[in-house]
Amino acid sequence: MGYEVPIASHHSAQIINLNEILTRCKPDFQRIEQSMKSHFSSHLPFVNEVSGYILFSGGKRFRPLLTVYAARICGRDDPGDNEVYDLSVVPEYLHAASLLHDDVVDEGILRRGRPPAYKVWGNKAAVLVGDYLYARAIDLASSFGNVKIAQAIAKTVALMAEGEVIQLLEAKTPSYKERSYMEVIDRKTASLISVSCRIGALLAGASQDNVERLAEFGRYLGRAFQIIDDVLDYTADVKELGKGLGTDLAEGKVTLPLIVALEKAAPKDKNRLKGILENKNADYRDLSWILELLEQTGGIEYARAKALSFIGQAVERIQPFKQGPAKSLLEDLSWFVAYRKK
Amino acid sequence: MGYEVPIASHHSAQIINLNEILTRCKPDFQRIEQSMKSHFSSHLPFVNEVSGYILFSGGKRFRPLLTVYAARICGRDDPGDNEVYDLSVVPEYLHAASLLHDDVVDEGILRRGRPPAYKVWGNKAAVLVGDYLYARAIDLASSFGNVKIAQAIAKTVALMAEGEVIQLLEAKTPSYKERSYMEVIDRKTASLISVSCRIGALLAGASQDNVERLAEFGRYLGRAFQIIDDVLDYTADVKELGKGLGTDLAEGKVTLPLIVALEKAAPKDKNRLKGILENKNADYRDLSWILELLEQTGGIEYARAKALSFIGQAVERIQPFKQGPAKSLLEDLSWFVAYRKK
Repeated sequence: MGYEVPIASHHSAQIINLNEILTRCKPDFQRIEQSMKSHFSSHLPFVNEVSGYILFSGGKRFRPLLTVYAARICGRDDPGDNEVYDLSVVPEYLHAASLLHDDVVDEGILRRGRPPAYKVWGNKAAVLVGDYLYARAIDLASSFGNVKIAQAIAKTVALMAEGEVIQLLEAKTPSYKERSYMEVIDRKTASLISVSCRIGALLAGASQDNVERLAEFGRYLGRAFQIIDDVLDYTADVKELGKGLGTDLAEGKVTLPLIVALEKAAPKDKNRLKGILENKNADYRDLSWILELLEQTGGIEYARAKALSFIGQAVERIQPFKQGPAKSLLEDLSWFVAYRKK
Repeated sequence: MGYEVPIASHHSAQIINLNEILTRCKPDFQRIEQSMKSHFSSHLPFVNEVSGYILFSGGKRFRPLLTVYAARICGRDDPGDNEVYDLSVVPEYLHAASLLHDDVVDEGILRRGRPPAYKVWGNKAAVLVGDYLYARAIDLASSFGNVKIAQAIAKTVALMAEGEVIQLLEAKTPSYKERSYMEVIDRKTASLISVSCRIGALLAGASQDNVERLAEFGRYLGRAFQIIDDVLDYTADVKELGKGLGTDLAEGKVTLPLIVALEKAAPKDKNRLKGILENKNADYRDLSWILELLEQTGGIEYARAKALSFIGQAVERIQPFKQGPAKSLLEDLSWFVAYRKK
């Protein structure tokens, strides 16, 4: 497979203003937050403490917003409708549960600028509260009387676990292949963002075609989201990112920019890079050398272009829907994902 | 709360012959095994390796058998019916998933006579494959087009996680209360055995009364099952048990026999026992002293009597069903739980 830079053809290089998107969705965010709080209740204060730490730690509520707007673009837009906000809690719970387990698995150091839950309460608590949140998400998902919603959620949890397993195996014996990378992010990230859209469409009673369109939209958006995440791990402003640069490198995660760099680098550099990756003890000098290599080989540029191409495909998927505020929001949100700085 | 020994009034001291029960259910066991195998398939060989290690390690298929016979006692007894065997896989998957996570949490040393999965493949793999099995169980549970089945399963997973959390907190600062012990076993063990029966009844389309009867049957049976498990940890033949005596003690688990011993012991013995429990470094001398104390204080006797009382209540719950092979089997299985030696 070559590394032609894909061309993002569906947008002019517009500047996406996050504040403007946030203002437009403010009432939605408030109602998502209300639902988050109303469903947040274990009998055990300890479970609430641990899960609250991750659920109310400044997450952007990206997935719930997708659920709400997927329902809305399919015509479910009654302002008195609370069900859609309740449903939107489901992907956020899954996301929180996966973060709890992933941090145990990845031995992450920082999460949203704070130590991850397993560092505060220990591995055991993180595993168990993660289980609890998965279960609550699925319980909630099956409370809407729509078996398809419950099934889609259960399948997603299985995919996410598989994605983490592949990532774990890749960290042990990396294949350095774009294909393996895509397998991981499709399962780990894109499946959840896809199902966030799918369940919104299902709740709205959309046609099967439209359900699949939104699920595909979410899948492409999710791929782009993860690629940009991986790019930002090497390029972001550390303060904005809330964790250190090169965190993936430290955790032995071989992401798309590195895969490209390995493919394109001169043999000498290739060996040095592989050595750093396999020893898993990169210091700041290695990191700055790698940043340079990523620049030279076009690893960052390739990954960004790939993400833009996926965003283009995502936006294409929702073109059959009629113009309106829901469609505009999903489009703007997509472009924002491509151009975000954190 | 006093420690009167409850009276098991519903049985003569019959000898329960496991082989006889096994022979009666042989065709069921074979079909459960077939279903187990047919649903056992991740795309990832590694996931199959880890989950196969726990799913096919000589488990007794106690929970699947309950699902099958709960359906049968409710009139679902067509011999050509495969659905009930497929459904019976669900509680076994949940059980396996919980074993994977519990062993990580409890740092167990042996499981069914072998090192637990986390010792073989590491904590990370055990967490992720556990997640995968939970998800597959829920996915399968939602494939029967009955939302109540999916919801019951999801609620059970949440309860099980809560039970493990309480146990974790109790291990840190034990309350030494029978009430806390019951809270743990109700959530951790009885909820799963109860739901194994509930989903069988739901699949059979039983009346709400009958569904609740079987769920209650399972709850009492599950309580007895766990109490006997905890008794066997101090009294079993080590070879039969497949793990060492006093394993719970070593893991800091304060079970019913110890709670009774603490309540009844002389102040000097009480302090010594608390000291051993809090230091979590019991050696074989401490263990043999504790075994004697359990004998003296009647801790073992009390726990056995409690279990028998629960079995009595379980069997009482299914009396309204008409006599027949399904009812006899559930009764015999219950008494076997009370008198089992491993």
